[in-house]
Amino acid sequence: MVRVGIVGGTGYTGVELLRLLATHPEAEVVCITSRAESGRRVDDLYPNLRGHYDLAFSEPDVATLAACDVVFFATPHNVAMNMVPELLAAGARIVDLSADYRIHDAALWSQWYGEPHASPEVLPQAVYGLPEVNREAIASATLVACPGCYPTSVQLGLIPLLAKGLVDPQHLIASSASGVSGAGRQGKVDNIFPEVADSFKAYGVAGHRHLPEIEQGLGDAAGEAVRLTFVPHLLPMIRGIHSTLFATLRAPAGDLQALYEEWYADEPFVDVLPQGVFPQTRTVKGANRCQLGIQIPQDRDTVVVMAAIDNLVKGASGQAVQNMNIMLGLPEEMGLQQVGLLP
Amino acid sequence: MVRVGIVGGTGYTGVELLRLLATHPEAEVVCITSRAESGRRVDDLYPNLRGHYDLAFSEPDVATLAACDVVFFATPHNVAMNMVPELLAAGARIVDLSADYRIHDAALWSQWYGEPHASPEVLPQAVYGLPEVNREAIASATLVACPGCYPTSVQLGLIPLLAKGLVDPQHLIASSASGVSGAGRQGKVDNIFPEVADSFKAYGVAGHRHLPEIEQGLGDAAGEAVRLTFVPHLLPMIRGIHSTLFATLRAPAGDLQALYEEWYADEPFVDVLPQGVFPQTRTVKGANRCQLGIQIPQDRDTVVVMAAIDNLVKGASGQAVQNMNIMLGLPEEMGLQQVGLLP
Amino acid sequence: MVRVGIVGGTGYTGVELLRLLATHPEAEVVCITSRAESGRRVDDLYPNLRGHYDLAFSEPDVATLAACDVVFFATPHNVAMNMVPELLAAGARIVDLSADYRIHDAALWSQWYGEPHASPEVLPQAVYGLPEVNREAIASATLVACPGCYPTSVQLGLIPLLAKGLVDPQHLIASSASGVSGAGRQGKVDNIFPEVADSFKAYGVAGHRHLPEIEQGLGDAAGEAVRLTFVPHLLPMIRGIHSTLFATLRAPAGDLQALYEEWYADEPFVDVLPQGVFPQTRTVKGANRCQLGIQIPQDRDTVVVMAAIDNLVKGASGQAVQNMNIMLGLPEEMGLQQVGLLP
Amino acid sequence: MVRVGIVGGTGYTGVELLRLLATHPEAEVVCITSRAESGRRVDDLYPNLRGHYDLAFSEPDVATLAACDVVFFATPHNVAMNMVPELLAAGARIVDLSADYRIHDAALWSQWYGEPHASPEVLPQAVYGLPEVNREAIASATLVACPGCYPTSVQLGLIPLLAKGLVDPQHLIASSASGVSGAGRQGKVDNIFPEVADSFKAYGVAGHRHLPEIEQGLGDAAGEAVRLTFVPHLLPMIRGIHSTLFATLRAPAGDLQALYEEWYADEPFVDVLPQGVFPQTRTVKGANRCQLGIQIPQDRDTVVVMAAIDNLVKGASGQAVQNMNIMLGLPEEMGLQQVGLLP
Repeated sequence: MVRVGIVGGTGYTGVELLRLLATHPEAEVVCITSRAESGRRVDDLYPNLRGHYDLAFSEPDVATLAACDVVFFATPHNVAMNMVPELLAAGARIVDLSADYRIHDAALWSQWYGEPHASPEVLPQAVYGLPEVNREAIASATLVACPGCYPTSVQLGLIPLLAKGLVDPQHLIASSASGVSGAGRQGKVDNIFPEVADSFKAYGVAGHRHLPEIEQGLGDAAGEAVRLTFVPHLLPMIRGIHSTLFATLRAPAGDLQALYEEWYADEPFVDVLPQGVFPQTRTVKGANRCQLGIQIPQDRDTVVVMAAIDNLVKGASGQAVQNMNIMLGLPEEMGLQQVGLLP
Repeated sequence: MVRVGIVGGTGYTGVELLRLLATHPEAEVVCITSRAESGRRVDDLYPNLRGHYDLAFSEPDVATLAACDVVFFATPHNVAMNMVPELLAAGARIVDLSADYRIHDAALWSQWYGEPHASPEVLPQAVYGLPEVNREAIASATLVACPGCYPTSVQLGLIPLLAKGLVDPQHLIASSASGVSGAGRQGKVDNIFPEVADSFKAYGVAGHRHLPEIEQGLGDAAGEAVRLTFVPHLLPMIRGIHSTLFATLRAPAGDLQALYEEWYADEPFVDVLPQGVFPQTRTVKGANRCQLGIQIPQDRDTVVVMAAIDNLVKGASGQAVQNMNIMLGLPEEMGLQQVGLLP
Repeated sequence: MVRVGIVGGTGYTGVELLRLLATHPEAEVVCITSRAESGRRVDDLYPNLRGHYDLAFSEPDVATLAACDVVFFATPHNVAMNMVPELLAAGARIVDLSADYRIHDAALWSQWYGEPHASPEVLPQAVYGLPEVNREAIASATLVACPGCYPTSVQLGLIPLLAKGLVDPQHLIASSASGVSGAGRQGKVDNIFPEVADSFKAYGVAGHRHLPEIEQGLGDAAGEAVRLTFVPHLLPMIRGIHSTLFATLRAPAGDLQALYEEWYADEPFVDVLPQGVFPQTRTVKGANRCQLGIQIPQDRDTVVVMAAIDNLVKGASGQAVQNMNIMLGLPEEMGLQQVGLLP
Repeated sequence: MVRVGIVGGTGYTGVELLRLLATHPEAEVVCITSRAESGRRVDDLYPNLRGHYDLAFSEPDVATLAACDVVFFATPHNVAMNMVPELLAAGARIVDLSADYRIHDAALWSQWYGEPHASPEVLPQAVYGLPEVNREAIASATLVACPGCYPTSVQLGLIPLLAKGLVDPQHLIASSASGVSGAGRQGKVDNIFPEVADSFKAYGVAGHRHLPEIEQGLGDAAGEAVRLTFVPHLLPMIRGIHSTLFATLRAPAGDLQALYEEWYADEPFVDVLPQGVFPQTRTVKGANRCQLGIQIPQDRDTVVVMAAIDNLVKGASGQAVQNMNIMLGLPEEMGLQQVGLLP
């Protein structure tokens, strides 16, 4: 059995890791930390876990964590980058769900997060954990930076077009929408039910922190710098991200449906829907899966790609477990066979 | 008092007309028709109307309707175009909330609606009922075709940019989202709660019937044909439309915020939000209002305009009452002072 | 025009007062206080109010408030009871939406609210503001304590049975459910969208602060002490309270439908639905109305009464305006003709 | 591997059976019937199943079904009672999720369902499939009638009190609430999103078909006839049932918390929450689990029991799989370890 440690387990990515790992045949969570809830049973905070765990939150302790086979950081940004160097030195392998190691360039990171990066010396060894792009590097990595939720959906949707050079990389558009769990488990007025239920809005239009991460990944695929106009929206629902992606074709496209089906043919967690079928967030709810649809409306020169994921699964904790499986040489799909909860 | 008739009052635009007209100081609904519910009290079908109306649905009758000062059609498409010629001949003035007279070109209409237009001879006298564009023509019209819900939001959002020639008219993008009431009050499996709650999806990507209507209006504003990629989405909420609009600037823009504020300065029902504030559907719920926000992310060459309306009010019945006020010489804001229901 | 002051206007009952008073023909809000938001425009915090108010929050000031014709307290408990004595001394007339003056017995109040009452000397002049019970006393009151939201629904539902002595007053049951806006506009984790959406639970089962208020009102109607088992539940929606009330008939009931219709025949804001029709919260959304349904299942000895209100309107701000109208000799229905927003 | 057939797989209990059986280590669905969708792939109708099944709907065929080890009926009432006799004769073992065999008395069934029972001769061999009551009989049954969703929650909540004779069996009250998926996947206006979202109502107050089933089960537990006032309500959410149960104590109760914990100590799917903790539907979403809470408010003589289940899992398909496991001698928990999807 793989011994798993989780740092910062009280948030939604933490409880989702616990949900997924509860039925993982080779993983055992031996340690979950929280300063605020230290001593409290996890199933007291999250009664859905009753009967699945006999575990309490504990104070973070390097020695205990380093003794694990893998350590997940399910923390806000600014935690991992302070603890990871010591854990790496102690021999730990780490999957970081936060933003701390996603951006290769420390200066760019600082510009968007408003503070210096605490461990830029570690950045070169951080592997960006999008398995569909970096599977081999992940297998041998000691530190994996899990992609953000929006970036997962946008990159999986646009990479085939950019890698093939089919679209103008200077005028990419992502109109994305997320459920409220993406904002985390924080007691802010902006997130209380009466403020977000029964409504829809754009936010972060002037600049969202996921923008540089997405442009970095898309640029790698395109082999040149790209420009994306990224507008996230808030949906009145708990889980799910849907990205509607627009790009201008450089020339009459060939069979894009076939391109996508071929590109993702061997990917266990990317599902290209049949021609004319478009993804819905409800068909991937609770599942580690990205569903994609492709359309060229009116046969003009704009292609539309739609991508749906569960932000807490393929957009966070599921992808983290997928990375763990790859790092530890386990079958990539192990413990990730949950069927989307529909209806 | 203005004597009002309503054809097809059992749907959501019908009950919304009744809600708005119940407190309109100069209007009295004297007749509301429904073949299916003939004889049933309106407040039996819609208990929110108890105490506000002493009225029952009746079979449609041309003489009765023609005796009204104004007749609203709150019907699916394909009803008005069959009844309107006779009503016009009988001297009625008509506000049609359906799609029948929105498109000037009968052939184009037929192409999108899949059947011949029943009264193309009437099309030339139909005035497109977007008051912010056609106020004078509406005042003297006998037949007003109320815009669709999506078209209202997209046109109000993009017209200033196009009229000023600031953006490329060949690569316009509208990523719009609507509450489920936009699909009407029909017992289809696709619209039952467990199929649409807690989810988000695009639909009609290959081509939605509102596309030609929008391109017609935008083309009129631009003075040339335009091309719009229009992707509607379904939101897990009852009311509200939000359109996120993208356009490529032809040159560095001046002060677009000032442009929009000036453009709509005298419009009672278009509200340009302060710089950096973006619209939410909840702030216009139940109100006859379009709220707009403008942003140029990262100061690049793509402008983003956001527009929010209540699809049943400014996107349908409220706009219809606004048109009625204009047609009858009443103050345009009369009976339309409802404050958005927030929270 | 009536000059209105509002203390504590940033919460949901505050913005709801502003919504209702915006279209009240005889009221003008001249002052709205908030220490936290002092100086901020009300339509900046609540963009649904744009165009309806040219008003900013101010620091509370006794002289300014006392110069108003009526002062509303839209505050949490423990604010009014400290400010009211001074305002009364200065000649103000007050409508308190908080819990401070609802319970006649200061000791009982202290037991449930966990602190001494700050102005027990004022309690005797406080009139309980349920117009259907206390209309005359309200007319001449200087201080009206508006009922809580749950208490309004439970009392309107059970009073006819108790006043007529038809049911056992020792085994009353209220299974009530409220939308989340009832918890106020506070940034608590328990109220964020992912914690309450898509779920249903009971809370406060061991004892909710509305229990003594309800038992006080029901006891007054019954002419003897009553015992109520009151279980509130939290609904995944913003607005609305629904109470399902159970009582044991002392003898075979006569025509309870007729009893209720007669009892409330002259009440403008209580609507007894026809036999076999049951209330829904959606038919009273945004309206100052309580809808009631009555049923004796299987003709046994248990009667079921169902009551629906909008917790922010008939359960709070609407009832407050109704009380204001009565106090100031205005028509009781003035400014309260909003039709429920359906769908 | 157990060969499984499903009759009527297009509804919500059908897709939920497919979701649960997809990860059941010993079950293989070999046949799923639907007259309406015959020939269509199941993952075309339900895209959440893509990659989990290579299966299409087929016309029902007795020989094919009889060759299965177990046949589930996931049909509306009135289907199973016509097909089951022939299947039993052919040697099949059957788990019926519909109402056809739940009530022992054919006359009582006819009274509530408004038609004669088609196979009353089979009723004596039908075992009521509530494992917590009938585990042994289920093990050897050829025909198991799965309980209804409401009846599961009400019986698990009240049986300990009745079996111990602690409460008055003539005045039991169940105030229950269900998500909309309980109404099935049918295109009725009453169930479309705008009619049920954002609202709450009671229905079936005069008499709901689950009443006789519940009274039958409670009567068996009490050893005497019982009377229940059962009021179901409709919740604006997809999944989940919550029952709030009220009963009058015959004498001062001892430690009811201990009674419940002891009563259900060995039950894998009934979870008595700690004292003072009350169930939420969200903590059992997608899980085959009933969570219970017990309280005696104000230490009076009324006891309140709260029960939460997922109506499609412990209230239908999960319980059906649990019954299958028992019938076939598999571990009762096999394939039913899903953790509730929270948030």
